[in-house]
Formats: sequence, C-alpha cells, structure tokens
Amino acid sequence: MIEDLWVSILGSVAAALVTGSFVPQVIRGYRTKSLNDVSYWLMITICVGLCLWIVYGIIKQDWVIIGANISTIALNVILLGLKIKYSK
Amino acid sequence: MIEDLWVSILGSVAAALVTGSFVPQVIRGYRTKSLNDVSYWLMITICVGLCLWIVYGIIKQDWVIIGANISTIALNVILLGLKIKYSK
Repeated sequence: MIEDLWVSILGSVAAALVTGSFVPQVIRGYRTKSLNDVSYWLMITICVGLCLWIVYGIIKQDWVIIGANISTIALNVILLGLKIKYSK
Repeated sequence: MIEDLWVSILGSVAAALVTGSFVPQVIRGYRTKSLNDVSYWLMITICVGLCLWIVYGIIKQDWVIIGANISTIALNVILLGLKIKYSK
C-alpha cells in the first residue's frame, strides 16, 4: 500500500515536471511575442499523442497519467494560440 | 489478454506521437539554424520529468512508458545541443 503511494507521488512529480516544462515556453513566447522557431508540428502532434495517453490512463484507471496529460494539452493549446497570434 | 494487447498498442501509439512531435522541432531547428524562441527551461525540465517517468515505468514494469520516455529524452538532448550550438 505504501509502495503504491510512493509510485503515485513519483508519477505525479514526473507529470508535474513534464507539464511544467511548457510553462517557461509559454511565458517566453508571451514576453518575446515571437514563437517562430517553435514548430507547429511539435504542438499539434504532441496534443494528439497526449489525447491518446488520456485514453490509456482512463483504461488503466491511472489518475496520474490522466491529470498530467490534460494539463499538458492545455498548455500546448495556449502555446499554439500564441504562435498563431504572433506569426508574421 | 487481447485487451492488454490493445492497451499496449494504444500506449505505444501515444508514446510514438509524443516522442515523434519533437522530430519536426529538431528538423526545423537544424534547417533554420535558429532556436532562439525555444526555451532552455522547456528542454531541461522536460528531461528531468522524463527521467522520473522512466523510473515510474520501471517500477510499474511498463515498457511502453519506459521506451517512450527514453526516446523523448534523446530528442530533447539533441534539441538542447542544437540550441546551444546556434545560440547567438
């Protein structure tokens, strides 16, 4: 039981870091108003992949995987919006 | 048994898409020789998170999670190398 708790905490920290890694990218894009070097395909493909991870997490009833991927999708949708807004 | 197979296939496709999403970003950076808009913190933080996902996958003995995160780290290390190489 205790082990399961530790594994869930580990997964949550891993998820928070991967999700959180997009925050500085969104902030940088927002501050510099420039996201030219960021590839559209990075954001689009990652969102499709993250949707499948959510389905995977639902089937496995793994809330760590579900929660992480929903938040990462949200950040990538924001990033995509900023990229479209600032694209020359 | 069949369900497990489908869930593994789903996870593998999800993983391939998330990992694969960094390929166009690496190609774009390599072609344009410009990665200024890509945040260092995106790459560094995501690598730390992906390392924890690998530990999570090892504990859960989930080869889909392990394999996906090893390849995504490799791509992010390449991206980081290109960013350093091209940084003005």
